[in-house]
Amino acid sequence: MSHIRGRLGKKADSLVVKYTSSLPFDWRLYRHDIAGSTAHAQMLAKQGIIPAQNGEAITAGLAEIATEIEQGRFVFKPEMEDIHMAIEARLLEKAGAAAAQLHTARSRNDQVALDMRLFTKEAIDLTKEAIEDLQRTLLDLAQANQEVVLPGYSHLQPAQPVLLAHHLLAYFEMLSRDDKRFKCARKRADVLPLGSGALAGVVYDIDQAFLAEELGFAYISRNSLDAVADRDFVLDYHTAASVTMMHLSRLAEEIVLWSSAEFGFIELDDAYATTSSIMPQKKNPDVAELARGKTGRVYGHLMAMLTTMKALPLAYNRDLQEDKEGLFDTVDTLLPTLDVMSGLLKTLKVNGENMRHAAGRGYLLATDLADYLVGKGEAFRDAHGIVGRLVSYAAEKGRPLNELSLDEYRRFSPLFEADVRTISLDSSLAARDSFGGTAPKQVTVALAEARKRINRKAKERA
Amino acid sequence: MSHIRGRLGKKADSLVVKYTSSLPFDWRLYRHDIAGSTAHAQMLAKQGIIPAQNGEAITAGLAEIATEIEQGRFVFKPEMEDIHMAIEARLLEKAGAAAAQLHTARSRNDQVALDMRLFTKEAIDLTKEAIEDLQRTLLDLAQANQEVVLPGYSHLQPAQPVLLAHHLLAYFEMLSRDDKRFKCARKRADVLPLGSGALAGVVYDIDQAFLAEELGFAYISRNSLDAVADRDFVLDYHTAASVTMMHLSRLAEEIVLWSSAEFGFIELDDAYATTSSIMPQKKNPDVAELARGKTGRVYGHLMAMLTTMKALPLAYNRDLQEDKEGLFDTVDTLLPTLDVMSGLLKTLKVNGENMRHAAGRGYLLATDLADYLVGKGEAFRDAHGIVGRLVSYAAEKGRPLNELSLDEYRRFSPLFEADVRTISLDSSLAARDSFGGTAPKQVTVALAEARKRINRKAKERA
Amino acid sequence: MSHIRGRLGKKADSLVVKYTSSLPFDWRLYRHDIAGSTAHAQMLAKQGIIPAQNGEAITAGLAEIATEIEQGRFVFKPEMEDIHMAIEARLLEKAGAAAAQLHTARSRNDQVALDMRLFTKEAIDLTKEAIEDLQRTLLDLAQANQEVVLPGYSHLQPAQPVLLAHHLLAYFEMLSRDDKRFKCARKRADVLPLGSGALAGVVYDIDQAFLAEELGFAYISRNSLDAVADRDFVLDYHTAASVTMMHLSRLAEEIVLWSSAEFGFIELDDAYATTSSIMPQKKNPDVAELARGKTGRVYGHLMAMLTTMKALPLAYNRDLQEDKEGLFDTVDTLLPTLDVMSGLLKTLKVNGENMRHAAGRGYLLATDLADYLVGKGEAFRDAHGIVGRLVSYAAEKGRPLNELSLDEYRRFSPLFEADVRTISLDSSLAARDSFGGTAPKQVTVALAEARKRINRKAKERA
Amino acid sequence: MSHIRGRLGKKADSLVVKYTSSLPFDWRLYRHDIAGSTAHAQMLAKQGIIPAQNGEAITAGLAEIATEIEQGRFVFKPEMEDIHMAIEARLLEKAGAAAAQLHTARSRNDQVALDMRLFTKEAIDLTKEAIEDLQRTLLDLAQANQEVVLPGYSHLQPAQPVLLAHHLLAYFEMLSRDDKRFKCARKRADVLPLGSGALAGVVYDIDQAFLAEELGFAYISRNSLDAVADRDFVLDYHTAASVTMMHLSRLAEEIVLWSSAEFGFIELDDAYATTSSIMPQKKNPDVAELARGKTGRVYGHLMAMLTTMKALPLAYNRDLQEDKEGLFDTVDTLLPTLDVMSGLLKTLKVNGENMRHAAGRGYLLATDLADYLVGKGEAFRDAHGIVGRLVSYAAEKGRPLNELSLDEYRRFSPLFEADVRTISLDSSLAARDSFGGTAPKQVTVALAEARKRINRKAKERA
Repeated sequence: MSHIRGRLGKKADSLVVKYTSSLPFDWRLYRHDIAGSTAHAQMLAKQGIIPAQNGEAITAGLAEIATEIEQGRFVFKPEMEDIHMAIEARLLEKAGAAAAQLHTARSRNDQVALDMRLFTKEAIDLTKEAIEDLQRTLLDLAQANQEVVLPGYSHLQPAQPVLLAHHLLAYFEMLSRDDKRFKCARKRADVLPLGSGALAGVVYDIDQAFLAEELGFAYISRNSLDAVADRDFVLDYHTAASVTMMHLSRLAEEIVLWSSAEFGFIELDDAYATTSSIMPQKKNPDVAELARGKTGRVYGHLMAMLTTMKALPLAYNRDLQEDKEGLFDTVDTLLPTLDVMSGLLKTLKVNGENMRHAAGRGYLLATDLADYLVGKGEAFRDAHGIVGRLVSYAAEKGRPLNELSLDEYRRFSPLFEADVRTISLDSSLAARDSFGGTAPKQVTVALAEARKRINRKAKERA
Repeated sequence: MSHIRGRLGKKADSLVVKYTSSLPFDWRLYRHDIAGSTAHAQMLAKQGIIPAQNGEAITAGLAEIATEIEQGRFVFKPEMEDIHMAIEARLLEKAGAAAAQLHTARSRNDQVALDMRLFTKEAIDLTKEAIEDLQRTLLDLAQANQEVVLPGYSHLQPAQPVLLAHHLLAYFEMLSRDDKRFKCARKRADVLPLGSGALAGVVYDIDQAFLAEELGFAYISRNSLDAVADRDFVLDYHTAASVTMMHLSRLAEEIVLWSSAEFGFIELDDAYATTSSIMPQKKNPDVAELARGKTGRVYGHLMAMLTTMKALPLAYNRDLQEDKEGLFDTVDTLLPTLDVMSGLLKTLKVNGENMRHAAGRGYLLATDLADYLVGKGEAFRDAHGIVGRLVSYAAEKGRPLNELSLDEYRRFSPLFEADVRTISLDSSLAARDSFGGTAPKQVTVALAEARKRINRKAKERA
Repeated sequence: MSHIRGRLGKKADSLVVKYTSSLPFDWRLYRHDIAGSTAHAQMLAKQGIIPAQNGEAITAGLAEIATEIEQGRFVFKPEMEDIHMAIEARLLEKAGAAAAQLHTARSRNDQVALDMRLFTKEAIDLTKEAIEDLQRTLLDLAQANQEVVLPGYSHLQPAQPVLLAHHLLAYFEMLSRDDKRFKCARKRADVLPLGSGALAGVVYDIDQAFLAEELGFAYISRNSLDAVADRDFVLDYHTAASVTMMHLSRLAEEIVLWSSAEFGFIELDDAYATTSSIMPQKKNPDVAELARGKTGRVYGHLMAMLTTMKALPLAYNRDLQEDKEGLFDTVDTLLPTLDVMSGLLKTLKVNGENMRHAAGRGYLLATDLADYLVGKGEAFRDAHGIVGRLVSYAAEKGRPLNELSLDEYRRFSPLFEADVRTISLDSSLAARDSFGGTAPKQVTVALAEARKRINRKAKERA
Repeated sequence: MSHIRGRLGKKADSLVVKYTSSLPFDWRLYRHDIAGSTAHAQMLAKQGIIPAQNGEAITAGLAEIATEIEQGRFVFKPEMEDIHMAIEARLLEKAGAAAAQLHTARSRNDQVALDMRLFTKEAIDLTKEAIEDLQRTLLDLAQANQEVVLPGYSHLQPAQPVLLAHHLLAYFEMLSRDDKRFKCARKRADVLPLGSGALAGVVYDIDQAFLAEELGFAYISRNSLDAVADRDFVLDYHTAASVTMMHLSRLAEEIVLWSSAEFGFIELDDAYATTSSIMPQKKNPDVAELARGKTGRVYGHLMAMLTTMKALPLAYNRDLQEDKEGLFDTVDTLLPTLDVMSGLLKTLKVNGENMRHAAGRGYLLATDLADYLVGKGEAFRDAHGIVGRLVSYAAEKGRPLNELSLDEYRRFSPLFEADVRTISLDSSLAARDSFGGTAPKQVTVALAEARKRINRKAKERA
């Protein structure tokens, strides 16, 4: 931050240079650009399109440049319009005439498409890892709190008791879908665009299979016009990221709610909350709020890219340069959001008692009572009416159901017997034993299953 | 259209009923709702949860209702808040007490999730078909115009000659990716949510595998809270549709450009254009303009759904009712847009001469000349400089390159020989022989390959 | 709903007609279209461009058509592509040759711009009225609950006590800004586009001032190309509506929170909530949830229109037809949302005791204690430290501040004296006496002031 | 760019600090923060809330800090979470205990709202200036090319001839509306939030009128809860910027089209285009393409902020921190886009001949011919038919209308007389003499009027 940018709106002397330059953000593609150029030079030499020693001079020069950048010794000159130019200019200083041959059988159009694809694939891999981390955290938290019961809500009204582990597994499932979405996105990014040239293909006898192998691509682009005009893979990252952020915003909302004074379900660790010197017991869930707020930013980048691509004729148009900043920012938002949410969950304290207490209020067992009557032979719809009147009675008296006497129960239906007293949070949970239900038995299986799935995924990756 | 809705904003007596009712749009789910209820009733009977004759009464009643709706005899009463209620009320009239048992082991929450998943899967199948139709049209048009050459553009400036078939195949590739995107979306929609109940699972001994089998689902939801709170499959349709519409907006833009007086590359069929009585030769590409304009609408529905889902706590919230109209409208936009674009392409007239003429202007062969010099031993960068000066000379004289004499050529480089005259549009095309390039040889293979892929896809579906 | 639209995606015979027709939605502009045509005919006759009797035949015919439509006797033929055509065709039947003269000095392009401007102005007026209604409801509710105290929240953590009236006035202020936003929007819609013709102006000696006067426009468009290509006024409605919906979504969120079991601050009237037969005490805030959820839809239409307008060359393009459905739906969403929120607020029950109780918990008076010490001469920062330790002590003991003895206070600072006991919710409120603060004195003035503002606005309109 | 940020996604040790810190972007508010704090300190001293010498120590310290930042000597420490903290910490070093008093009667919540309002007002002023610059450029270009005629297009089909000046004035009008939109936005930003404290107001006898006067605010916020929770003024900037960018994208699209080989209407200056070494006559309109592409980015930030604000309960939530980067980027996009478009227009070369030639093709005078026949007594509709047949005849022969003999004309209608030959581009233009039409007389008046309006606006501002 040592460099303070000029005052707001101050006009530069070279307005156009500043307006069109992408170096201030695409420097970040330097590794991908160097990797791409290295493979290209090797291929050109291998095919005899350039002399072997020139190929070597190029790859050696590129390796040196990579080191210079990593070590902060590289001078990014503002007059270079992009990272490709910046590296090319430096390579000319190092490798002279040989460097000039690097552009044989390649154009800026397929080069930039390549770099963006390499970046996107790498970003997807990191994202999948971070998703997996958060999934493991959810599993750990669920496993450590297997006994904890809380109200399941609909319309933010307590409806039926559920296990906290079951609730956490819902997020595990969302993240599993996110992972798959990124997997699909990766496949579509995994296409080598080299060989497309400016737009029509190239006139040299190149070896695209070699390039794909070297650079780790599974496919080669089938159409040169499409290859230089296509940014679907950027959109695929944006859409997968948007849905993931939406899921995280739901989790964040629940963290904000649950850590409110009114809910009191969880207590955030000091490291994941801000406190006030004057009300030290109060903790603001800033991290969760920011995660929720940043959802907008990721949606915005998706919308930006969709708008930019709308109605562009083939093939390359300079509008496509706008693909970068939004993607970088979405990656830089999603990865740390996944990470901080994981850290936040790892360190929070579950107030199991408060949760159970909330589940005990509000007649959450009413449906269980109705099911009880149906079990005793009452018609479904009538059972509902009976329990409705019973609950009204209890609510008026301000008493929970389990404090009513059997006599009081029987005033509403003669089918009630002593065993009505066995209806409890635990019996209610146990009864919801359908596949995917909250019954402890189901949840135990689901936890084990989830652990297996995540381990399998990790193994596939390794 | 016989019923004109009340004046703008006139307050209804029953404001809330109108505000919350979804029947005006979700009537459209009637087939899916009846299919779901029918399978559910069969399962309940099979499992002995309800008597067999009740199961039969329900399924018979539902079949009658389906017929009533198909035949326009069903009365949609405004006081019914949604299609589920409307059907249920009618079923009560038909099947009495038996009907009341249909809601055993099911809630509105998993029922509506089911209907939406059935609808979405059906919509995806229709979309994939329509995409395939348009792909075939592109192939046919390409095959019928294999000789046609036009300028390949970048920055809307003519850059290098390409085959029209190659250009059309670029859209074929975009649509192939769209098809895969819908395929991924279908997999995530293909999950049975029944058994989730209101949110916690159900207390009866249901058979979810039977339901999945009956209703054609490949998977069963693993978590009941997630199953009733999840609308990812709606978002997946929206994102795939948005990218597809983006592709179609690019095609539409090119159709608008190409049918302009200035380009004159194509002529639309009268059925796909509007004409003026006073300027009969003028044709407005309204269909393409609308396809381009409707892109906004589809993006908008995506953004709407993302916004609606943001920060909703688990599990069901009424906000989710907003999933329907946007999805319906996106389906109702995308399908006919694919269809009209296909119809438009099938009927347009290609002005191959105008295209070739445009490709002949503007020194599009300059790069070929440079490649020629490189082939004769000139250094890459110097070849560029020489050709640049040559082109400037020709441009000043207002003459095309092939009208310059050999002497004139040699003023710029002694390497030019008589064979420079063999450089032509056709030699330029032929030279771009990399995989995915525009060389006729490549394009012929690509066409055959594309035809095979589309046939394979069709076979898979059948 | 008697007409069930064809099955999903069924291809019509006349695909293009269906794709391009706007009659299914723009029938709604019939009043505006007839008003515009009537004024135009009168002007043509007045200027002697058409014979007086033809002008009369046209206006008489249009009046009859208006009646036919109002009475549901008008036949909307699907082959008519829009409402303008439908009315014109009917007018030809009624007024014959005279009817044909209506199109003198006018084109479809300026006609449709006119209709949309008339509609938008009307929609804005209705919106401003509905905003005002909701503002009055907020004032009434505030006035009826002037004594009610609740916690003011930041980060959803209770921070300082505030008056409910003050809280409600915050929404009054948001809506005041919304009203002004619509006022600005109205000014930009208030421009007559007639006289622009297809795009270049018209060749007849028309009287635009007369038309503006007749149709109630304050301004006449200064540029014919702009007039037919401009839809800013539609965007202005969308942006004002989006911000208003955002405000309503915040109010809706608070209604959902406040009616939760955990908060218990309000109870919704049965008419504005859904209940369960089995848990009759439970009320789902569906109306507020839908208001919150519909925010997405309005944002979506804004984004759709922005996307559609992007990069359209001048002047008219058929893409512009997409301006209608989104605007209609936004109007049809915003107006009832304002209305139902007003109804909901009018009928809800404030649980003042629960609110005050919540304000009494959680050491909300800590800042007042610090201010007390500062008043006694303690340095600002030190005062914070002292109170922080005091609060920690009380929190550990689980006691509220006002149950601590003076001795206990003095363990933390000798500056505490007996009058520390006078610090209370009420003294805290009273002390926040800056302009715009929550002190009852300020709030009383603010309420009176707000009432005056709203009455002034109403008077201006009348 | 000397500092290369860590590799993609590398986890920092202090994840949370990085996640929540706003210093990397809000350092940019330092001037506004210092201005606000200076006024606040002066007010506190004036009111006797802090000793006069402390007030002086604070203001002196702040002035020094401003200088340190301007001169690049200020050390931004990463552990400071925002610019307010960074300045406060430095002030403590400089002014010691006095510095601690700066926070009397102010909280971070109203402080940050103040800074953002100051920034936004400044940004609006700069934007209005840049809009005015571009408007003047359009006027100058129009005035310098008053004789130039080109086809007016609808559906991108040439329709009627218009003056280039008229076409440029259409953009002048769009920008006039943009200017008014920013003017409305400025009014709503022009509200002092100080005195609101954390959310409930402050307990000291502050002088808000003095603060408003010092800091240049016209209004004081009426409600403290609203004042700290409101970001409407940010949204107002985004919406005005989005509509302005939409207008600029239309202009950019036309520049791309007009500089294509097919249109050839303009030639961009080398400074505003990129050229190729090998095709030196080819110029890519990169600047216009980027202006068009960046429209997406601005739309995206609007959508982001709308999403972030959705459903936030009162009052301050940390989500609001997300207001900054999007606003900064939108300002940093809009201002240079206005500037480069102005520069591009100033330097482009108009190919008036090509434009006039295009206007002469395509039977653009057909409507004038019909008007001619109407003038001779032919019925409107019949005149259209006659001209339609005439045009078909000419089109078949491939001849322009003015090359037909009078005999040929008369084959289609006996009403044609020798004076039909006087119909020309110029007579067509002259006839469109309605207010706002393209008649040279109208355009001359419109140009003069526009010049007056812009000068008046400039005077108002001065």
